[in-house]
Amino acid sequence: MGSPANHLAIASLDQVDPKDIWQKDKDHFVHPWTHFDSFKKDGSLVMGRAEGAYVYDLSGKRYLDGIGGLWCVNIGYGRREIVDAISAQALRMAFFNPFVDTTNVPAAELAAKLASLAPADLNKVFFTCGGSTANDTAVRIAHYYHARRGKKSKKQIISRVDAYHGSTYLTGSITGRPADRSPYLHFVEGLVHHVSSPNFYRAHEVLPNGIGKGMSEQQFCDYLIDELEAKILEVGPDNIAVFFAEPVMGAGGVIVPPKGYHQRSLELCHRHDILYVSDEVVTAFGRLGHFFASQDVFGIVPDMIVTAKGLTSGYQPLGAVIFSERIYDAMSAADPDGWFTNGYTYSGHPVACAAALANIALMEREDLNGHVRKMGPYLEQQLGTLLELPIVGNVRGHNFMMCVENVMDKATRDHFPEEVNIGKRISDHCERLGLIVRPLGALNIISPPLTLSKEEVDELVSLLRQGIEATMADLRAEGHYKG
Amino acid sequence: MGSPANHLAIASLDQVDPKDIWQKDKDHFVHPWTHFDSFKKDGSLVMGRAEGAYVYDLSGKRYLDGIGGLWCVNIGYGRREIVDAISAQALRMAFFNPFVDTTNVPAAELAAKLASLAPADLNKVFFTCGGSTANDTAVRIAHYYHARRGKKSKKQIISRVDAYHGSTYLTGSITGRPADRSPYLHFVEGLVHHVSSPNFYRAHEVLPNGIGKGMSEQQFCDYLIDELEAKILEVGPDNIAVFFAEPVMGAGGVIVPPKGYHQRSLELCHRHDILYVSDEVVTAFGRLGHFFASQDVFGIVPDMIVTAKGLTSGYQPLGAVIFSERIYDAMSAADPDGWFTNGYTYSGHPVACAAALANIALMEREDLNGHVRKMGPYLEQQLGTLLELPIVGNVRGHNFMMCVENVMDKATRDHFPEEVNIGKRISDHCERLGLIVRPLGALNIISPPLTLSKEEVDELVSLLRQGIEATMADLRAEGHYKG
Repeated sequence: MGSPANHLAIASLDQVDPKDIWQKDKDHFVHPWTHFDSFKKDGSLVMGRAEGAYVYDLSGKRYLDGIGGLWCVNIGYGRREIVDAISAQALRMAFFNPFVDTTNVPAAELAAKLASLAPADLNKVFFTCGGSTANDTAVRIAHYYHARRGKKSKKQIISRVDAYHGSTYLTGSITGRPADRSPYLHFVEGLVHHVSSPNFYRAHEVLPNGIGKGMSEQQFCDYLIDELEAKILEVGPDNIAVFFAEPVMGAGGVIVPPKGYHQRSLELCHRHDILYVSDEVVTAFGRLGHFFASQDVFGIVPDMIVTAKGLTSGYQPLGAVIFSERIYDAMSAADPDGWFTNGYTYSGHPVACAAALANIALMEREDLNGHVRKMGPYLEQQLGTLLELPIVGNVRGHNFMMCVENVMDKATRDHFPEEVNIGKRISDHCERLGLIVRPLGALNIISPPLTLSKEEVDELVSLLRQGIEATMADLRAEGHYKG
Repeated sequence: MGSPANHLAIASLDQVDPKDIWQKDKDHFVHPWTHFDSFKKDGSLVMGRAEGAYVYDLSGKRYLDGIGGLWCVNIGYGRREIVDAISAQALRMAFFNPFVDTTNVPAAELAAKLASLAPADLNKVFFTCGGSTANDTAVRIAHYYHARRGKKSKKQIISRVDAYHGSTYLTGSITGRPADRSPYLHFVEGLVHHVSSPNFYRAHEVLPNGIGKGMSEQQFCDYLIDELEAKILEVGPDNIAVFFAEPVMGAGGVIVPPKGYHQRSLELCHRHDILYVSDEVVTAFGRLGHFFASQDVFGIVPDMIVTAKGLTSGYQPLGAVIFSERIYDAMSAADPDGWFTNGYTYSGHPVACAAALANIALMEREDLNGHVRKMGPYLEQQLGTLLELPIVGNVRGHNFMMCVENVMDKATRDHFPEEVNIGKRISDHCERLGLIVRPLGALNIISPPLTLSKEEVDELVSLLRQGIEATMADLRAEGHYKG
């Protein structure tokens, strides 16, 4: 048996002993992406409450949440109308399964609403419990679709280096971020192929033998498209089911691909009868200023859009695959044995779907997309001023999905040695100063709630600047940096 | 674009037009386990609200929920204290990510609480969004554990025919229920092995060449254990990571294995350094009268317990893997590169964890386990009276996890021809009469809320009897049955 635990639900934070919670967490809660050595040494920072764009730890210290929970709390914290929608539905009917031939009101309403927001004929919605299971399901839809068309050999998957698509055994394997592939884990064999990351800032490292050095963005794009085509021909178009791409790569480093890249890769896929999945888990629901980025920002109509996160602003676990009528028609062509044997207990969970409906209604009423299209350029511009700092090599992203890349040498773009742990150092200083920015290797990620005011943008950028400057001072003192 | 959709969250059912919802569902919501032909023809039954053990469709018709949502609404519907816990936490802090080194109060409390309820040293908790992702994660934990001990070749998985373990690409492949393997889907190759279903009622079909006919339960158990050992030796103990078993098989047909089977299979696994995962997604949180069934009902201490469903009584999506200190110690042994690169945005979701804490507190305060241990035998006994009916071949299960198996001939145990669709016919009659029982091939599943009173048990059994009798009348009229 473990340590004695409180038998009551937590009624209020007044009852909470911060040390007790910290210890229970350390003893019993195995976190996602645990780094065992440092977790055993330091334990956790316990967040207790949140409001607007701010979160508070159990000591009462306030932080501007520069990452919106995890790219997801798009409407900010403590929005009573979402809570009311959750609470009303949980009381009315917290659950009933939608397997086969029963359904519930919020799931049906939300499916119709997503169909109305998604581009073109993407009118069919499969609900899951998050982005990982939605991407996992997208593969199963692709396999089912091709098999129903008599193309059972089309099962291989193409993804990209630096891609992040989830954490099931399959989607962890589709993911192409090297840091996410622990050598102690096992990955799917013989099913997934990776092409290069579309990271133009690092083209000199992306291309073999440094031939990317000095390339134009257009040349880089040509290279990527040629490489994708070569990969398709190598694997064989008859063997490939699906290509996965985030419109802007998220966890891989906020990588905006070269202009025209998405259109050209989609055309290439369609020419070879390969389904194109746009993984909009991060980019949808306003982060780039539109409900979906595929068509409105990048001019493409994919075959499937995968989403989660901003769909409920993180208030409830929910994911969705929104796919085309064309795919549905092939999957559902007359066949008495035509069962799509896939789905989750919580698919179309009425409370999660009610939260999503209220979240979308709020975004529409407050025109949050319009706010992002107005405030995003200001955030981009203000973050851009950090390029004055000697270790800020690149500021990139779009609207409310941004990152700062820290380098030791701006000319060579060389990173600090790994043991400097530059992103984490900066985020530790920012945390001390009252700002959460997510460290990812040499990067710091900025993806705040979409509701940010001009003053809050200024506060964010000012604190981040102070965090970077404090880190530079440390590095100079330690002899890591002479700038 | 799809059909015009309501731009407001659903404030109350008064605003809802049943026909509009039905049409939106049909047009846009792709259900789990969709059977396309019948869905296109009939569409859905829309459930609108629920209270206690009853659900109501949009016409206001009342049904006794004989399946507890989907084996999960253990405390019944509309319990205000769970809703209050959900609502309070959603307002206080609806989300913050627990990646690496941040955490939240309900997740830490719930992890400690689960450790205190789970047997022996099962004190480490990894949260996911449901049972499928929890089983998927259990595999990743097993791989990580063995690799950290220098046993990287131990990656194969053993499961059982008739097992249900989830719907990710991996857990759909671990699943061994033949009906869940659409020929149009693709499954993991070369990683999963299946041994026989422990279905004693069908031993004559389970064993090759009908040699199971007339076997004693003990002989059947010996056969299953010998078969498992032969499979382990065939695959090679050095290649096997993990064995998965539900204490009582759920979707596979409420199969209670022969006495001693679980102890002996666990001993066998441990002798060969194979981790034993007890999939308690259905059996935990009171369905068998205890928080967990592994030790309290079956006398085994597995290496991992996977749970979901009753953990929140379905009010919120949540799953968990509860695993041993021994596993954690090996996984987390000192190593600067020791990252467990696995997890979900919604792992340890504060609102879902708050719901689970409130759910457990309610179960403890009302002693629902005690109620199930008292009322379960009555349910078993009353369902047992249905064996008087000529087409009821078997009534099996334990406490609040039961099924009725319908046969054409009690002596041979032969089923009706598939086109009779016997389970569905009975469930359709029951639905008409105001009772939900889940059809699964020739079976009807009964897994009601655990709060059921004696009167509600009587109502359930009486309506089920009427449903079976009405079906028999139809079958006689159609010439399918002469009994």
